[in-house]
Amino acid sequence: MNLLEPADSLPVLVIGGSGFIGSYLVEALLAGGRQVRVLDFGPGRVRHDNLTHWAGSFLQQEILQEAMTGVGTIYHLANSAMPREANRDPRRDCAENVVGSLGILDLAVSRGVRRLVFASSGGTVYGPTAEVPIPEDHPTRPITAYGIGKLSIEKYLRLYDGRGEAESLSTVSLRIANPYGPYQNIAKAQGALTTFCAHAVSGKTIQIWGDGSIERDFIHVSDVARALMLAGDHTTEEARATEINIGAGEGTSLNTLLDLIEKILDRPVAREYLPGRDFDVARNFLNIERARSKLGWAPQVSLQDGVAELLAHFQSQRLC
Amino acid sequence: MNLLEPADSLPVLVIGGSGFIGSYLVEALLAGGRQVRVLDFGPGRVRHDNLTHWAGSFLQQEILQEAMTGVGTIYHLANSAMPREANRDPRRDCAENVVGSLGILDLAVSRGVRRLVFASSGGTVYGPTAEVPIPEDHPTRPITAYGIGKLSIEKYLRLYDGRGEAESLSTVSLRIANPYGPYQNIAKAQGALTTFCAHAVSGKTIQIWGDGSIERDFIHVSDVARALMLAGDHTTEEARATEINIGAGEGTSLNTLLDLIEKILDRPVAREYLPGRDFDVARNFLNIERARSKLGWAPQVSLQDGVAELLAHFQSQRLC
Repeated sequence: MNLLEPADSLPVLVIGGSGFIGSYLVEALLAGGRQVRVLDFGPGRVRHDNLTHWAGSFLQQEILQEAMTGVGTIYHLANSAMPREANRDPRRDCAENVVGSLGILDLAVSRGVRRLVFASSGGTVYGPTAEVPIPEDHPTRPITAYGIGKLSIEKYLRLYDGRGEAESLSTVSLRIANPYGPYQNIAKAQGALTTFCAHAVSGKTIQIWGDGSIERDFIHVSDVARALMLAGDHTTEEARATEINIGAGEGTSLNTLLDLIEKILDRPVAREYLPGRDFDVARNFLNIERARSKLGWAPQVSLQDGVAELLAHFQSQRLC
Repeated sequence: MNLLEPADSLPVLVIGGSGFIGSYLVEALLAGGRQVRVLDFGPGRVRHDNLTHWAGSFLQQEILQEAMTGVGTIYHLANSAMPREANRDPRRDCAENVVGSLGILDLAVSRGVRRLVFASSGGTVYGPTAEVPIPEDHPTRPITAYGIGKLSIEKYLRLYDGRGEAESLSTVSLRIANPYGPYQNIAKAQGALTTFCAHAVSGKTIQIWGDGSIERDFIHVSDVARALMLAGDHTTEEARATEINIGAGEGTSLNTLLDLIEKILDRPVAREYLPGRDFDVARNFLNIERARSKLGWAPQVSLQDGVAELLAHFQSQRLC
């Protein structure tokens, strides 16, 4: 490999590229004219001549090694299990996801990869906090094994920045808020917003833990995909060995969200308020100034437009 | 095991109890009338009727399980390798020390252990920082795999606090500064202060990286042992699921230290100033207010007394 060849002319590897965020990222990369490789169990929903699929897991060193050869940029979006499963066996989660991510980092160094972008979690690395919007320098006190694993991986990314021949590897972690959009897996309860829209369209009662006043940071998946692409291409000093929040930058209460859904549908939706859960913090949304200044990124899809699109998506599915 | 039996009437397990800090802790526990078990490779320097030794590593689940049975309090002071070795293979360090510590936590929960005290590292978890003395809430940006591992383990300790039958397990991490004192292993270059004293007594030239103005937080090992004991016995709400700095609370420059050694010996010592290392931060010392308020702990051995004792120790060794 010619070290002077620009990284953006080399193939890109998306680990976890068949998942919700991964598929949008892969589409965006392909639209940008990139050669894309995906390492994931299934092939996902995207098909394209410039897309190749390696069937497997990042825990399989041989496949990982093969998929990584000749690659300029890696996006690491994979997780060996669902977030809530991590708490049942933190030791296994750490042995798989944290140690496994170090396996990716070690191979990235030995294979001469230039850029590694990690999808971290803005909703879990901080833990309960009084200060909103939350800046990246806020103390991190995750209360789930999933959040601890993400935070540990972030620290290892910082350590590996500048490793490799000619100090070639640069790294960055994006702390992504609550993404939503079409094709999110509601069976796995991945996102409140997407689940609410699906239930509103199908007429199923929407269950809310607590009084609906808790505020969350909902960000459209296409904005997340664009942030990841930008993070892959920005390899300047200021956008490496750091963490960058990716969110709407403002909180939306569950009640405000439900009111918006009713307004767009122009009819009431059935709500059921359940007792609050003590692990739900009142307000959680991210300060996104760093993304603006370091990546030139800001969200483009308003909540109004994103929710309207998602409702239309579920309505079209019902008509099929 | 009777859950109402006070934890301090049960045996105590010190994992890594044959090491530098471990041996002082074991002595202090025995002096306090406790039944002490040590899990470590070698038997260490302490001998006592109330002390039993399990030969092995915390990575050996069966020995660990056996040593832990019936124990009320665990002190986890072990590390599978030397700090500087971790950077050569962070993946292995994580797989052994972080995953291994989760093995200790899982067993502590299943065996009904009440209290787990972890020896973390005040010198490495924060990374470079402009603010001194460093408070526990300061952002943590470790620049070594050793520091990242310690920080990750701290987060898992918080997660496990309150687990176990009747939510019986409580946890706390002590972020220990630079300990010094007799019996520290200078062959492994574990501490600048101890090495300086040894060389000053033997007449060997003392090498200083940089101009000697960098400040560190030196704390006598007996003060560290007392802090660990207090942390084991304080299981109130305020002293659990948290991190507590243990240090002198003030910085001492290497030059000040050398001047003190010369004053006590009443003769000059040979110094050689070498080029500075770029990973040495200028000033690193800990804010110890939390230790005062939550544990009622403060250092008792002054630097003057500690250095004088250590010099006398090396002088008596030469006379043997």
